Formats: sequence, C-alpha cells, structure tokens
Amino acid sequence: MVVNKLDIATVLGLFGSFTLVTGAVLMGGAVASFFNLPSVLLVLGGTFLVTTISFSMQEVVRAQKLIASTIFTRRITPDYAAYSMLDLAEKCRGKGVLQLQSHLLSLADDSFQRKSLQLVVDGLPVEEVSRILQNDLNGMIARHNSGSGVLRKAAEVAPAMGLIGTLVGLVQMLGNLNDPTSIGPAMAVALLTTFYGAVLANMFFSPLASKLERNSAEEVLLNRVFMLGATSIGRQENPRRLEMLLNTLLPPASRVQYFS
Amino acid sequence: MVVNKLDIATVLGLFGSFTLVTGAVLMGGAVASFFNLPSVLLVLGGTFLVTTISFSMQEVVRAQKLIASTIFTRRITPDYAAYSMLDLAEKCRGKGVLQLQSHLLSLADDSFQRKSLQLVVDGLPVEEVSRILQNDLNGMIARHNSGSGVLRKAAEVAPAMGLIGTLVGLVQMLGNLNDPTSIGPAMAVALLTTFYGAVLANMFFSPLASKLERNSAEEVLLNRVFMLGATSIGRQENPRRLEMLLNTLLPPASRVQYFS
Amino acid sequence: MVVNKLDIATVLGLFGSFTLVTGAVLMGGAVASFFNLPSVLLVLGGTFLVTTISFSMQEVVRAQKLIASTIFTRRITPDYAAYSMLDLAEKCRGKGVLQLQSHLLSLADDSFQRKSLQLVVDGLPVEEVSRILQNDLNGMIARHNSGSGVLRKAAEVAPAMGLIGTLVGLVQMLGNLNDPTSIGPAMAVALLTTFYGAVLANMFFSPLASKLERNSAEEVLLNRVFMLGATSIGRQENPRRLEMLLNTLLPPASRVQYFS
Amino acid sequence: MVVNKLDIATVLGLFGSFTLVTGAVLMGGAVASFFNLPSVLLVLGGTFLVTTISFSMQEVVRAQKLIASTIFTRRITPDYAAYSMLDLAEKCRGKGVLQLQSHLLSLADDSFQRKSLQLVVDGLPVEEVSRILQNDLNGMIARHNSGSGVLRKAAEVAPAMGLIGTLVGLVQMLGNLNDPTSIGPAMAVALLTTFYGAVLANMFFSPLASKLERNSAEEVLLNRVFMLGATSIGRQENPRRLEMLLNTLLPPASRVQYFS
Amino acid sequence: MVVNKLDIATVLGLFGSFTLVTGAVLMGGAVASFFNLPSVLLVLGGTFLVTTISFSMQEVVRAQKLIASTIFTRRITPDYAAYSMLDLAEKCRGKGVLQLQSHLLSLADDSFQRKSLQLVVDGLPVEEVSRILQNDLNGMIARHNSGSGVLRKAAEVAPAMGLIGTLVGLVQMLGNLNDPTSIGPAMAVALLTTFYGAVLANMFFSPLASKLERNSAEEVLLNRVFMLGATSIGRQENPRRLEMLLNTLLPPASRVQYFS
Repeated sequence: MVVNKLDIATVLGLFGSFTLVTGAVLMGGAVASFFNLPSVLLVLGGTFLVTTISFSMQEVVRAQKLIASTIFTRRITPDYAAYSMLDLAEKCRGKGVLQLQSHLLSLADDSFQRKSLQLVVDGLPVEEVSRILQNDLNGMIARHNSGSGVLRKAAEVAPAMGLIGTLVGLVQMLGNLNDPTSIGPAMAVALLTTFYGAVLANMFFSPLASKLERNSAEEVLLNRVFMLGATSIGRQENPRRLEMLLNTLLPPASRVQYFS
Repeated sequence: MVVNKLDIATVLGLFGSFTLVTGAVLMGGAVASFFNLPSVLLVLGGTFLVTTISFSMQEVVRAQKLIASTIFTRRITPDYAAYSMLDLAEKCRGKGVLQLQSHLLSLADDSFQRKSLQLVVDGLPVEEVSRILQNDLNGMIARHNSGSGVLRKAAEVAPAMGLIGTLVGLVQMLGNLNDPTSIGPAMAVALLTTFYGAVLANMFFSPLASKLERNSAEEVLLNRVFMLGATSIGRQENPRRLEMLLNTLLPPASRVQYFS
Repeated sequence: MVVNKLDIATVLGLFGSFTLVTGAVLMGGAVASFFNLPSVLLVLGGTFLVTTISFSMQEVVRAQKLIASTIFTRRITPDYAAYSMLDLAEKCRGKGVLQLQSHLLSLADDSFQRKSLQLVVDGLPVEEVSRILQNDLNGMIARHNSGSGVLRKAAEVAPAMGLIGTLVGLVQMLGNLNDPTSIGPAMAVALLTTFYGAVLANMFFSPLASKLERNSAEEVLLNRVFMLGATSIGRQENPRRLEMLLNTLLPPASRVQYFS
Repeated sequence: MVVNKLDIATVLGLFGSFTLVTGAVLMGGAVASFFNLPSVLLVLGGTFLVTTISFSMQEVVRAQKLIASTIFTRRITPDYAAYSMLDLAEKCRGKGVLQLQSHLLSLADDSFQRKSLQLVVDGLPVEEVSRILQNDLNGMIARHNSGSGVLRKAAEVAPAMGLIGTLVGLVQMLGNLNDPTSIGPAMAVALLTTFYGAVLANMFFSPLASKLERNSAEEVLLNRVFMLGATSIGRQENPRRLEMLLNTLLPPASRVQYFS
Repeated sequence: MVVNKLDIATVLGLFGSFTLVTGAVLMGGAVASFFNLPSVLLVLGGTFLVTTISFSMQEVVRAQKLIASTIFTRRITPDYAAYSMLDLAEKCRGKGVLQLQSHLLSLADDSFQRKSLQLVVDGLPVEEVSRILQNDLNGMIARHNSGSGVLRKAAEVAPAMGLIGTLVGLVQMLGNLNDPTSIGPAMAVALLTTFYGAVLANMFFSPLASKLERNSAEEVLLNRVFMLGATSIGRQENPRRLEMLLNTLLPPASRVQYFS
C-alpha cells in the first residue's frame, strides 16, 4: 500500500539536464578532453571529504540514502489519505476502534499510519497518542533537515573544490610557459575542475536538497492527516467533524468532500 | 466584473528592456552571431529541467500559468471593492442578507467575492464563514508563494547553466588553439550561454517573481476587503462601523469616505 | 514651519563622489571615450524598465519623488518638536484644548502635527485619536518601505544590466577580431556598461535607499512625538508626565528638560 | 577609575596585518608603484562620501570617534564590577544607601555606574531608577548599532569604489593601446584602486565593525551589572541574593564567589 | 569515563582532502613552485591578525583550543547517558539520593554529569538545581557560539587576504613586464595567495566551524539528558516517567527502552 512510484520530475530533470550538457560536450568533438581522472577525484572526493568534516559519518551515509529516496515519490496523496481516514472513521462509528484491526494487517510494519492506528486500537489515552505521534513527526523533520543540510553543504563545497583545482592547474601552467602549444590544453584541464564543481553543485546537490525539503513538507502533511484521523477515531468524534478538520489542513486543491 | 486589464508595467517593462538589448545587439551588425541553437537549448532547457528537479511537475506547470497571469492586473482596486461592500451593507441593512441574491448573479462563479457573500446568504454562522474564508486565503497565499518560489529558483539556475555552457565552450576552445582565427568566434559562442543566462535571470525570472509577490499581496488585500464586508453584513453591523474597519485595512491613498 | 532644509550629507556626498569619479575620468584625457549614448540608454533605460516590471507604474513614479525628497531634511528636530508639544501642553493646562486653535493656523494643511492636534480639538475620544494616528503612521511606514524597496531593486538591476551590456559588446568584439587595432577601443566600450552599472548601483541607488530608510525612521520618531503630545493634551495629563514619556521615546542626545 | 587600557588585540592586529602587507609590497622593490595619489583619493574619499549619503553628518562623525574608541578596552571587567557592587551592598546593609556618598566621589562624572548609584542615593523609587537606566542602556545600544552600521556600510562601499576606479583605469588603458610598453604600468595603476578597496574593507572597516559590536555587548553587560547592583542596594536586599542574581548574568568564566 | 575518542569524520576528512590537493600538486612535478614563504606568512598571519582585531585575545586563543577539540568526539552517546541515568534512578528509588555517592567517585571532576548529581546529593531544592544547570548550559552554548564565530570570521578573512596578496603580486608583475619569461612565474606566485586563502577557508575554517556547531548541539543534548536525570532523581519520580521524558528529548534513533 505504501509502495512508492518514480518521481518523474527528479528522474526526467536529472536525466534531461545531464543529457543536455553531455550533448554540448559531444558537439565539440574532443570528448576525451572533458574527462580527467585526477580532476574528477579531486572534486568528487574533495567534496565528499570536506562535507564529512562538517558532519558525522552516520549523517553523511544517511544523506546518501536520502538522495536515493528523491527518485521516488509517495503513491498516496494527502486527499487519498484523508478519504481513507474518513472511511475508517465511518466504519468505527458506533462499532468501536476494534474495527481497525483488519485494516492494520494491510499496512507495512514501519508506516506512520499503522503506528497511529495501532496506538488507538491499543487503547492509549488520546492525549498520549497525540504526544507520541507529534514526537515521531518532530524526529522525522529533524532527520530530513539534517539530510538536506548535508546536501546544501556539499553544494557549497563543490564549487570551492573546483576553484582550488583550477588554481593548482593555473599555477602549474604558469610556472611552465616554455612550450606555447601546451598552454591551451593545460588551461583546459585546469578549467575542468571548475566545470565539475559547477555541474555537481547546480545540477545535482542544490536541486536535490530543494527536492528533499519539498518532499519532507509533503510527508509531514500526509502524516498529519493520519495523526488527525487516528486521534479523531480515538475520541469517537462525528466523522463530519473530522472532514472539517482535515480540510483546514489540506491545500485547497486537495480538499475532500466525503459527506457531500 | 472581474475582467482583468493589461498590466502596463509588466508589458512595457518586458517589451522595452528586451527591445533595448535587441537594439544593442543589432547595432553591432552581426546579429546571427548572437543566436546559437545549442546554447539556447542548453540554457533554456537546462534551467527548466533543473528547476523541475527541485519541485514537482504540477508546481512547474502551475508556475507557467502564474507567469502568464503577470501580464494582467485586477481591474477592481481595493477602494472600489470597499465602496461596493459598503453599498451592499447599506442595501441589506434592515432588509436582511437576501438582498444580496441579485448581486451574486453578476459575479463570476470562481470569485472569492461570490463565495464570501454566498456563504452569508446561505446563513452559515459568521465565525464559520470567517474560518472558511481565512482558510481559502491561506491556501491562495501558499499557492502564490510556491509559484514565485519556482521563479526564484529558475532565476538562480539560469546563470549557473550559463556558466556551465561557457565552461564547456572554453574547454573545447582551449583544447584546439591551432587555428588562431577560430579563437575569437569560439569564445564568442562560449560567452553566449552566460549572456542568455544573465538575460533570463535578471530580465525575466527575477522581476516576474517580484511582480508575483507584489500581486499576491494586492490580491490578498482585495479579498480581505470582501471577507470583512461579507462578515460585517452577516453580523448585520452598522455600515459606518464597516467603513471604519475597512479604512484600517486600506492604505492611506485608497481610504474610502462613504458616509459624510 | 515645516519648511525643509537641504540635507548636506546627501548633497555633498552625491556631488563630491561624482566629482571624484569625473576627476579620475578627466585625468586620463580621453573623456569622450567614457560617454557612449547606446550604453547609457541600455543601462539607465534597462534598469528603469526592469525595475518597473517588478512593481507598478505608481510605485516607480512615487519612488522618483522619494529620491528627490532625500536632498532635503526636516528642519524640525525631535527635541524641538518635544519642546513645542510641552509648550502647548502647558498652555492648555486648565484652560482646555481650545487654546490649540491659534497654533493650528500656523501649521501646513498636510502636516501630521496639525492632524494630531485637530483631532484633539474636535473632541474625539483619545483612544480613537490614537488609533487613527497609529494607522496613518503605519501607512507612512509602508509607503516609505515600498519606496526604498524600489531603489533596492534598482541597485540590484543596474549591475546586471551593466553585465548584459558588456557581454553583448564582448561577443561582438570577439566575432570580429580581424583588425587588431579595434580590439582595445571595442573592449573599452564593452566595459562602459559595467562601469555605468557599478556607478549607478553603488553611488546612487544603494546609498539613497539607505538614506530613505534612515529618514523614514526619523520621520516616524518625529510623528510619534506629535502623537504622544496630542493624546497627552487630549487626556489633560500633567505636562511633567508628558516630559517623562517623551524622554523614553527620544534618543539620549535629544532628551528634553522643560521642567528643570 | 574608568581609565581605559590599550586593546592589544586591535592594536596588534591592525599594526601586524598592515606590516605584513607593507612587507609584501616592499619585497617587490618598486614601492612607488603602490602609491598613486588620485587612486587613494578616489577610494578613500569616495568611500567617505558615499557612506555619508547613506547617513547624516553627525552619524559619520560619531562613527569616527567610535573607530578611535576600538583601540581601547575597559579596564574594569564584569567580575571586578560585580565584586565592587557586592562590596557596596555589604557596606550599605543596615546602614542605608547614604554610605554610597564617598564611593560616588571617586567615580567619573559621565559614568553609568555613578548615575546608577546617584539615583539610588537620591531616593528615587527603585522601579523609576530601573526604568531610567534601562532607557539609557537602550540609547547606548542604539548609538553603538548606528556606529557599527556606518562601518559596515563603509566596508561595503570601499570595494565598490575600488571596482569603479579599476574600470575607469581599464577603459582609459584600452582606448590607448598604441604603445605596448605602457599597457603593463597602466593596468597596474588600474588595479591599485581594487587593492586599496580590498585592504580598507577587509583589514579595517569590517574587523572594526565586528570589534565595535563585540565591545558594545561587553559594555552592556558591565552596565547591567551596575544596574542590578544599584537596584538591589536600593531595595535593601540581602547581598547573597545579589550575588546569585549577578551570577545568572555573568558568563561562567567570570562568575563571582563573594560569600564562601 | 568521559574519555573521548577520535572523531573519524574530522580526521579522515581533513587528512583525505589535504592528501587529494597535495596529490594534485605533486602530479604537476614542480612542487617547489607551490610553496612561497612570504605568501604563506601573508595569508596565515594576515588571517590570524585580522581575525584578532574582530575579537579579543582570549577569544582567539579559546577558538584554537576548540579547533583541537574537533578531532575528538564524545565516547558517551545520548542513549548510553539515558540508560545510565535510568540505572541511577532505579537504584535511588526508595533508598534515597545518597546511593549516588559511589557513582560520583567514578566521574571526572569537571563533568556536567558530576555537577548535576552532586547538587542533588547536596540536597538543594530541585528548582535551584535546575536553574543552576540551565545557567551553566547557556554559558556553554555562548562559549561554543563565540568559538565557531571566530572560525566563521577566519573563513571570511582568509580569501580576502588571498585576494590582497594576489593584487600585490599582480601590480608588481605588471609594473615590470620587460622580461617576458618572468611573467608566467610571477603570476604563478601572485595566484598562490588566492590558492592558500581558498584552501584555508573552504577546507579548514568553514568545515571546522560547522563541526563545532554540530558538536555543540550534541553536547547540549547530552547534558540535557544528565540534567533531566538529576532533577528527576531529586524529585524522586517514578523512573518510568523519566524514561518517557528522556524519549521526548532523544532523537528517534537513540530512544531508550529500559522498561520494555
């Protein structure tokens, strides 16, 4: 049920923009002059290592998992989740929260939705449920912020490593101007690290950090819907009231009309 | 009634500034050297694709509609709206809110004004009306912010893509310095992407993002006037009190004097 | 009474800094090479037009009036205003607010001071007077902020237009390197737009925006003094209490000692 | 008692860093080529004049006094002041505030400490004393902020004036390329203004603005200690309570242990 | 018990990134051309001296100790600390806080944990304990902020000193273009300071400032755990309640389950 689908915006954007740059490189013919292993190592490795200094090993590893997560998007939209919560609220009305048992079986073990409903089925006081879930949500937000912080830092470091590489190349070239024919190629190599740094920062780290922040906001909204649903069911409120509360949470385009 | 008129500042500004740059290009004679299809593709396409990574498909599409919206401005000014609300308040005074029915027919289906008055005519409690409208307003603000955020991101990405294109061109040129006569034209082509990026960011995305933010503030003010009017009518307050409340909302230059 | 005097800091600063730059230009001899009509048009016109896109026509026009206002400064200082209010408070003490009538005649129609005192003479409740004046003050602050915002935007746009002009010039020059003697002059012309943009942004728009913000803060302080005076007179408080309240408002260097 | 001592960090830092740069200049031999009167005038004068536009004459003059003040630091540390207040509190205990008279004679007329204690000796209600002193403190903070604001602005303007000077030099040089031997020296002169601007902003204005902000925070802390001491003495509290209150104000390294 | 372990992220990151840059330098052969004592002195010394102007001697010295601290990380994790506090709470339950005596002996004199527990054993009222510890924590945060502020400033100053050095070198070179063979090496030397500044700022000061801020947040969390534990023991609360409170403080990945 929580199966994710491909995030077309991320996949197409990354694939398309890298294709465009590759195309521009290919048009010039001399493709080989755009690949220089030491330069790649300096910029990629340097960005990774300097970013690592700023954080801990675990944070950098976790950030890499978060990068991978950006090529997927949630199949469940906030309005789908809202309808689903209203369905459950209607079903439990009068018959009690034990009606949720069968629904729980269909949910993945690690889902926020399952935890929300399980706590209600377990009969915890609603204030307690609310506190626990809010706490989980805060932890999730902190985790996401730390992840996008790693990418933001990498987007800052990559051009700096590119500049450092270019300065190394320029100093080497300027110290050895005897052979005029070598000046051009030497400067081309020197510029490569600036090029790598610009591509990494602007076409990879920075947009992925923005996407992570955007996805985090969406995930939080989705989980707020589950949390609101679960606590409303726990309080055995009228589902019409739940509908009203959900609509104050949802953006206008996603508002629900369960009871016409 | 909600027919929009052309926003002269946007149209004249865009048209005039692009004419100035085109004029500068034409003066040099070799116009053809300013158009290079691969460079255009790299900067325009790259900006679009990288911006897309940072958002979702829907957000980028919605931003394009918002760009189109900036060449129009609202025909209704806040003070016109305020007088209109005072007229309705005076008409309903004593005779009840059903007097609004005929006015409602003249309004477009999707207008905030219509919704505000309809809710009052429907007899909803004023607190409920107020909550619903405030909710709609918040949604509108969030939608506008997301739209101008897409343009702000594009204004950041465009010069970066221009730099990347120029670096590609420079590396290609430097690797192939044998023919001195080709250096100038090659570097001219390399600089084109920086030129496109600077024009796109500074003459298109950035000012339009500012305009969107400005229009959003104006739209919100206008809708606050409708909301204040509708709730005042719903509460059957003295229209003189509505006038006073409206004047605390309106900027000094737009204040209304309906009574006396 | 509200006659303004020249703001020496603005006049001397603008005149002096432009003289210095002109001197530097003259020293090189070839003055003519610093004036190029198309470049002037591109930077000045482009800055005006792009700034216009971001705002509305009225806002840009109002900003031009605000620029003109920065060469004047208020003749009335906050401590002079405070003494003047204490004089009036002392005069009205026991004899009533009608004593203000003769003073009102000496004030310009559009002054905040006149409005403050007129409202008190008219016998409005002090809370009402206070609300109306605070409202006017908020409107004034918003108007000033919008004005300095236009200049801040222009200070951002001018160097961008300078860069765009230089890129146009460089591309034209690079496409036409046959005649080596023309390279220097062509590049000189290309750099002119960057020069104009830097001068406009750093020596005109940016310092004037700062000055507007500074003057706005001073104007607001002055009007707070009038507002405090008028409401204190309206409440028929002891002028000694007014003196104390004024001194909490005024900066240390401007504090008043009316009752030694 | 309020005699200040030299701020070694400021004096050594300024002297040392300027010595380093002078050393680098001297090593190249041609010292004369680093001094160009028109360039000095343009950058120094331009920075002064453009900064003046942004402020008023008084503010710029006051900022110059504040610059001079950064080479001194307070001889009195916050913990010394705290012990001194505890001494006085102990002395006044039971015997009344008139015991402060002799101590007052040893204090400079313009000191915050003297004013604090004098107000208490004069028998003003403690709330009134507290209000007056807080007011003075706010005024001092505003004055310091305005002073560091002038330096921050100057640190922004200086590199801009440097750039403008360099552009003037480049345009002049490019318009006159006939004599190849003059190109180098002309460009050297053109770069001088950028050099002056970078030195002024990064080695003078910007670090002094930081130092002013730091000193302001320290001065405010010191005066808070005097204010807390004076009001505590005025309230005739137990000095042990004053010690506790002072320690919540002081940084851990400066905490006092007067009793046991 | 508070023995620290090496922070692998800092050590590996610093070592690895400097190795990469050294490798790039070595590959070019002429290693000697990358070391120029006057340039090193100018950038390193200038950065130190200019940073000193902005702060006081003590702050700069303290910052150097803080830099050294970043190569260590706390051996105690927040969850280990939480279990340890729960152990103590369980032990004291019913038997009283004197049970803590033996545990105190095993703690280093200067630890926050020891101070927290000692205050409880001493029998101070819990509110007093809480106030004192919060105060210490605030002092620690201020000390850490001041330390990372010094590094942030140094990261700002280093590239500026690099630019100043490069400008000095360029002016010297341009004034002496007679010998064409010396141009390349002279410019190489001029670029060295920019290279040093970029390396210092981006690979040393800036990531270490980030690491300090990150470690400060972790240290504060750890001490909050000790503070919560000590005050809970002081109040003789049920340890289950302490577990719950600790879990609202800890990030999800570090939550404790002492009572299954």
